Amino acid sequence: MSTPHLDVEQVEAANAAFYDALEQGDFERISDLWLSPADLGVDESYHDPADAGVISCVHPGWPALTGRGAVLRSYALIIANTDYIQFFLTDVHISVTGDTALVSCAENILSGGPAPQGGEELGPLVGQLVVATNVFRRTPAGWKLWSHHASPVLAESAEDAEDAEDL
Amino acid sequence: MSTPHLDVEQVEAANAAFYDALEQGDFERISDLWLSPADLGVDESYHDPADAGVISCVHPGWPALTGRGAVLRSYALIIANTDYIQFFLTDVHISVTGDTALVSCAENILSGGPAPQGGEELGPLVGQLVVATNVFRRTPAGWKLWSHHASPVLAESAEDAEDAEDL
Repeated sequence: MSTPHLDVEQVEAANAAFYDALEQGDFERISDLWLSPADLGVDESYHDPADAGVISCVHPGWPALTGRGAVLRSYALIIANTDYIQFFLTDVHISVTGDTALVSCAENILSGGPAPQGGEELGPLVGQLVVATNVFRRTPAGWKLWSHHASPVLAESAEDAEDAEDL
Repeated sequence: MSTPHLDVEQVEAANAAFYDALEQGDFERISDLWLSPADLGVDESYHDPADAGVISCVHPGWPALTGRGAVLRSYALIIANTDYIQFFLTDVHISVTGDTALVSCAENILSGGPAPQGGEELGPLVGQLVVATNVFRRTPAGWKLWSHHASPVLAESAEDAEDAEDL
């Protein structure tokens, strides 16, 4: 029997596992954390008129990707082009109802690609502030990602953003 | 009795109503379309350990806003500083399961603020491509917004974004 506190703990753990898998560049784990037809107990070929199992993903500055093929391909590309990435999550807020959970968090990212001249060295590290909304679904295989939307934060704070609107 | 096709139609209508209310600058309608404690049949003072009724919102380039107070205040500010705004929605994708619906869409925005020198004239119109993920909840009062995350699209297409990652 699930309780609200336990639900929140489990969702927080699933969210942390997702960022941990990204830090490790672990494609199999990332793939497993995204909702799949198997998690829902249906066949790959099953067509649901409400597209209940269709995932969507927005990386910072990107258009939306829909469906496991496009989403997982984007992670394969990102992993291939990232030598180092670390996420410091702040402002994590979780809202759970029934079998769906909404997670809002700030991703304080430190990342580096390969050195421009090639070789063993790491390229320059870049800091980036991103805000993410992650939607999870409860499945027999645990909480799985249904949607991830991440975007660059261009204003320092909500107050700054509101001040900017006042100009 | 709800059916998958009817659910998708209702969610699409709720999503369209949200953008229509923004175009009209109709604060009351915007406020009504966001999930509220009344929609869930609970008192304002009710504390749910899973924060099931807590809404969140990310405007393009902004950090996350959590809770009705902060979210509705942001809309009051945006309405006050927008003389003209029109949304052309494309790539609308809807996924519904149980009492939750996920909407992904591209917002092709044309907007204008007051003229810089004041007076009756409209300032220059600005076009903007934004991608949004909207999460709706089924309530006795209809489908209501639980989360809205909008962000600027900086790459022309998913292919361009992937090409950029390849550099």
